[in-house]
Formats: sequence, structure tokens, C-alpha cells
Amino acid sequence: MPDSLSPATRAITIRDVATLAGVSVGTASKALNGRGKLRPETRERVTSAAEELGFRPNALARGLLSGRTFTVGLVTSDSFGRFSIPVMLGAEDALGAGQMSVFMCDTRDDPIRERHHIQTLLARRVDGLLVTGRRTEPRPSIGSDLPVPVVYAMTQSTSPDDLSVIPDDVGGGELAVRHLLATGRERIGHVAGPYRFLAARQRVAGMTKVLEEAGLPLAGGAPLHGEWSEEWGRQAADILLRAEPDTDAIFCGNDQIARGVAETVRERGRRIPDDVALIGFDNWEAMALASRPPLTTVDMSLGEVGRIAAEHLLAAIAGRPTSGGVETIPCQLVVRESTGPRRH
Amino acid sequence: MPDSLSPATRAITIRDVATLAGVSVGTASKALNGRGKLRPETRERVTSAAEELGFRPNALARGLLSGRTFTVGLVTSDSFGRFSIPVMLGAEDALGAGQMSVFMCDTRDDPIRERHHIQTLLARRVDGLLVTGRRTEPRPSIGSDLPVPVVYAMTQSTSPDDLSVIPDDVGGGELAVRHLLATGRERIGHVAGPYRFLAARQRVAGMTKVLEEAGLPLAGGAPLHGEWSEEWGRQAADILLRAEPDTDAIFCGNDQIARGVAETVRERGRRIPDDVALIGFDNWEAMALASRPPLTTVDMSLGEVGRIAAEHLLAAIAGRPTSGGVETIPCQLVVRESTGPRRH
Repeated sequence: MPDSLSPATRAITIRDVATLAGVSVGTASKALNGRGKLRPETRERVTSAAEELGFRPNALARGLLSGRTFTVGLVTSDSFGRFSIPVMLGAEDALGAGQMSVFMCDTRDDPIRERHHIQTLLARRVDGLLVTGRRTEPRPSIGSDLPVPVVYAMTQSTSPDDLSVIPDDVGGGELAVRHLLATGRERIGHVAGPYRFLAARQRVAGMTKVLEEAGLPLAGGAPLHGEWSEEWGRQAADILLRAEPDTDAIFCGNDQIARGVAETVRERGRRIPDDVALIGFDNWEAMALASRPPLTTVDMSLGEVGRIAAEHLLAAIAGRPTSGGVETIPCQLVVRESTGPRRH
Repeated sequence: MPDSLSPATRAITIRDVATLAGVSVGTASKALNGRGKLRPETRERVTSAAEELGFRPNALARGLLSGRTFTVGLVTSDSFGRFSIPVMLGAEDALGAGQMSVFMCDTRDDPIRERHHIQTLLARRVDGLLVTGRRTEPRPSIGSDLPVPVVYAMTQSTSPDDLSVIPDDVGGGELAVRHLLATGRERIGHVAGPYRFLAARQRVAGMTKVLEEAGLPLAGGAPLHGEWSEEWGRQAADILLRAEPDTDAIFCGNDQIARGVAETVRERGRRIPDDVALIGFDNWEAMALASRPPLTTVDMSLGEVGRIAAEHLLAAIAGRPTSGGVETIPCQLVVRESTGPRRH
């Protein structure tokens, strides 16, 4: 342990550093925090004195002196769920490099709890806030008059003044269907998530665009909207294959749906991918790898979403805010065995 | 926003409160932090003055005055995985009631990163540390000479001086097999996780104890140890049912294994639970509910593990530490359709 943390030893303070360097406490503080205009020799003298004394600034006192606390608050609405965790890890990577610490709060999707957490974080003088959590639709802004910058990650604010960083679900739908077309599929169906989810509708939009460009109809006529579950995938595949027995590919709204679809396709005696190719969405490995065969899927690059959101926040804290709007991060195709050329 | 946070308004300080109340700054601080001996009238006068001025103590300054920061650090080694998240949520519940904020850090299971995070947290003067993250075996202590209390949750420290709060895996194995016996099963097999995991061996120990008490042999003679995966479940069920075709129940090391076992059992034309009953471990709902039929399983009460660990930490911070050792939290049986009476 550093000596300054041991209760038995008198802690070295910035006053000791200032005395040794022969400067005022204010000058020593500026030098150690890299702020204000100082001659290089002065800064050098203070740094040497600090090293000589083994001075470790008390992080709290440092916050008071510099007006910054080198902390950010991360507020999530989805109980640190499967989507917010990779976002958090990406954010931690970006912030860690800049020596920020992260206060995490979970709102359990309760607006009163959210307000409470935000007030607590502001009372702790965080330098900025990241708001995350998957939602059906864009969410209300946490406020336009906050004293610190805010960036939304994975979730989108309804206010055009706010910056939101989200995955490109439209592009993900395009990517999936272009891949199916590239493997020679022509009768492509779509088993989608719930219509109330913006992400589900955006994936449909991307798919529709690519099919129209290719001059192909959607097998079954319309997307089949249901739940994000294997059970729905099993039911929907049955509906689709009864209506359009010659369907040769199915784009699925997520990996759970794709897994259910795969079961029904197999049980109906169709081979994957020889007869019917399948593609999922999320790249949730526990699902995608255990599926038979392992699923080709679309990865939303969630770590990248978190990293970029955190970089925008750091820039805003440093006085270079990005203007409001939505920044989408491209998805990535992950090819496994559930897609490939058709074999008759 | 409170006025004191707006950069445009001069913040109300404790000095203003002290002046209005006619007391010293030290007395005002004691009154607002609920510390020291003061006459009730004095405390009352300071509180009224603070309310009148709309004084919101700067959380940082409050930390410096009281010697406490009302923060704890939560260090996880498993990338905020499926096991550490419920633990974190339980801890947040316990800490939230006491108005603590949580710094979260992920070590990505890298000892150097862990040391760095712990030093950063100590430099921020956290009041205590929670260490979490699933591991194969008990982990080394983060240190016995730290200036703040530490509690381990979900993971066990090798040092007997440390307090570790973990699920009762032995009891969970007992619970599973007692349930199978209660439904009339007599030829029970076990498909286990990797032998290198203490949790896997403990579940075996609980199972063995109950079978011995009942005077029953284990179907297949020995537990089948493999990976925590559906693929292993599929393979192992095949091995077990070839060796012991009259197996009437299988206790599975986790829900993924159980799901794979279920597939093979069905594919071999055996009914679940009529011919073969299945029980998993974890209560990972995405797996357990999507399995056919939905899985009876053992829930490790992870939220409870986190909550109790956090309560021990709060008590230690308040000067009432729990002595070192391992505290196990009972598992809960969750009954679904994969178990039930045998029907011939």
C-alpha cells in the first residue's frame, strides 16, 4: 500500500510539496493538475518535489482543487442486461485510458429511481453522464439544463439536442439480406421481433430496401412480427413454411428466434443450410453457437457503441462537445454454418 | 436543477450556513453530518439555516469533512458476466438504502488490471470494497493490509481472514437429488461441469450424500464431467443412455447441459419427464424456459448473495466487521415441467 493511505503515517500534502518547491499551494495545484499558465521550470520543480516526497494527491482534494472529479456516471435502465454490459465494457475501455472512474447505477426502468440516481451523481460532481439501456422506442431526455455533458449509448433520446450513439439496425438488416442474396437465395422470408420495437422495424426497413433493389418479393408477403423468443421462432417457421414451402432462406430478428426457426426447419425435414439458410441477429454466443448448426448472425458491435459514446463524452468534458443527433455504428456480419450455397 | 449546481449562481457554502446559524464552520459541519456531541437546539438551528438557504452539501467536501466518502468499489473479474450482474444488483439494493454510490471496475481477469483498479479506488477513498466474479477455484486475497474493509461475493478468498459470501453448491446438489427422489426416481445419473471447477465438484458432493443416504447407486457409476455447454449435454446423454438405458432421471450441472441432454433424450424417443426427468442448475431463464419442456432447475439466489455481502460490508464500514470465513447462501428449487412423477 502507498504510505499516504496508511493511517499510521502522516500523509504528505500538497502543502509539503509547495514548501519544498518554494511555490504557493495554488501554483503547486496548477502544476500537478496540468492547469493554468506556468513556466515549464516551475511545473518541473513542483513535479520533482512531489516525486521526492512520494506525494499521492488525495483524489477528493484533487477534485476540489481542479473543479473536476475524474468520474462519470453510467446510468442504465435495463438491469445491466445483455445489451448494456458490452456497452459498459467498451465505455470502460475508453474512459480507463483517460483515468476516469465510473459510478454505475441501475434504474430498473423506473423514472423516479432514475431521477434520484442522476441527482446523486450530480451531487457527487461527476464530470459527465452516460445513459444506456435497451428500449422499445427513443426515450425522453434526462434534461437539457444539466450542469455536465450527457451522451446516450444504445438508447436514443427524443431530443435532437442530445447526442445518441446506437447500432445501425437498418444497415444490419441490409447486411443480412445482401449475404443471403450473395449465397444465391431468392425466396427469403423474415421472422421479426415485436412491431413495437423500433429496432425490429428498422431491421425490416433494411431488409425491404435490399429486396426491392434486387426486384425480389418477400417470401410470405409480409414480415411475421412476434416475440423475441425461441417459441415464437418455432411457431413462425411453421406458419412460413406452410404458406411458402419453397422458402430458401429466413432472416430472423434475433438469435433466439433463429434458434427456434432452426428447430422447426429441421423437424420438418429440411436441411440447414442446404435447403433453407438461416441468419440471426445479436451474435449472442450462448445461443448462436449452441444452435444446430451454429448460426450466421449480425453483430451490433456493442463494445464499439460504448467506446465511441464514451469518447464523445470525454471530448465534451474537455470542452469540445459533439453537436446533438444520432450517430449509428455499423453492424458486422459473423458467418457460421447456417448459411451457404443452396444444394439440391 | 438545484441552484448550487448551476455555474451561473454562486454556490451556497457551509460557511453561509454557519453564519446564518451563528455557529462555527466546524459546528455546522458536525451538525449536518450527524457527528460529534452537540446540543439538539444547535443541531436544529444549523439544519434550519441549511434548509432556508437551500444548502446542498458538496458530496466531495462532505467526504473530506466526515472522513467518509459514501462510496464503495465493486471489482469484478468476469466482465460483468451472467453471474456477477445479479450479485451487483443485489449489492446495489443493499447499498442504495444506505445512500452509498458504487464505483464499478472490471479486471477482465487480469491481475495487473486488478491491482491498478484497487489502487485507483483506494486513492478515491472508497469506504470499502466488494470483490466478485465467478472463478474455477478460490482466488488469492486482494490483501490483508488494506485501509478499508473488503468482502468477497460469489467468489471465495483463499485467506481465512477474509469474509466470502457464496452460493451453497453442496446444498444445491442435495436439493436437486432430493426432488428427483421425491418424484419417485431411482436410477439417477449426473452430467457435470468441468472437474476443475470447485462448484461442479461441490454439486457432485451434495448429490452423492443424498444418494448414499437413500442407499441408491449413481446411474452410470460415476458423474460424467465435461464442459458447461449444450454440446457436452448432448454427447453425455448419449453416453449415459447407452450405458444405462433404464436411467429415469438426470441431474445436470447447469441449464445449458440440461438443454443439450433434453435434446438427446427426445431424439432417442424418450419422453421428458414421463420416462426421464431432468433438472438443471442456474435458473438461467433464457435457457431454462426455451428448453422443451421448460426446465426444473436450482437457482443460486445470486441477488441474495450480493445483498448479504453488501450488508456485511456496510456493517464493517460502520465499525462492526464480521469475522473471516465462508458464508453460504441457500439455493432455491424452481420446479417446471421437466420433472414430475414417472409414467409408464
